[in-house]
Amino acid sequence: MIFEDVAKDVVERVYGALASLIMGRDGIPLSMYHKEGVEIELESLGIEYSNVLAEVNRASGSIGSGDLSELSILTEKYMILLRIINPDYFMCLIMAHDGNFGKARYLRRKSLPKLRAEL
Amino acid sequence: MIFEDVAKDVVERVYGALASLIMGRDGIPLSMYHKEGVEIELESLGIEYSNVLAEVNRASGSIGSGDLSELSILTEKYMILLRIINPDYFMCLIMAHDGNFGKARYLRRKSLPKLRAEL
Repeated sequence: MIFEDVAKDVVERVYGALASLIMGRDGIPLSMYHKEGVEIELESLGIEYSNVLAEVNRASGSIGSGDLSELSILTEKYMILLRIINPDYFMCLIMAHDGNFGKARYLRRKSLPKLRAEL
Repeated sequence: MIFEDVAKDVVERVYGALASLIMGRDGIPLSMYHKEGVEIELESLGIEYSNVLAEVNRASGSIGSGDLSELSILTEKYMILLRIINPDYFMCLIMAHDGNFGKARYLRRKSLPKLRAEL
């Protein structure tokens, strides 16, 4: 299925990518993929970040900056890239701190039209 | 004062940078600077994004990804770069959509030790 393919593709093709998921903004996952040995509770992560997206969207709306399209989060352990697909779905990619962020972002954007056409 | 200098420096040196602020995590601004003609309600923006930072930090803590260091937000109109200085303060940079994000990020990181020494 296209959703599994997209989730897997970016993880396998980008240096440092660990896991990926496509998720409803309501916190229900559509597809998830992680590299072997990666122990991240993907579903909880997706739910936490769907809350974050709602908060960022609210903040962006209140200052008139228009709809949110992308959010990237750098923490001590991970780099997390969130990309809005449409008002109902988003993609989430979890990378190691030294991963190839630029390539991940490029591949995510490239996959958007395909995903939008399906959803 | 060093805080004014840092806030001004990145806005004047980076293509597409519009405004910058250094703010307490409690929503009280320390310094603000914007290009002439830029009409963004900087104080409200800072307050909104200090709430966002709290939400992201909570989410990152709950999935064990460690402390947040940087957050970048791409919306229809702006690119917003938030950088944690220390547990009490953060920097916020607002850029046009096509601004030089890489240079902004580099300059922000470079100014961190100076700011941390002062705060």
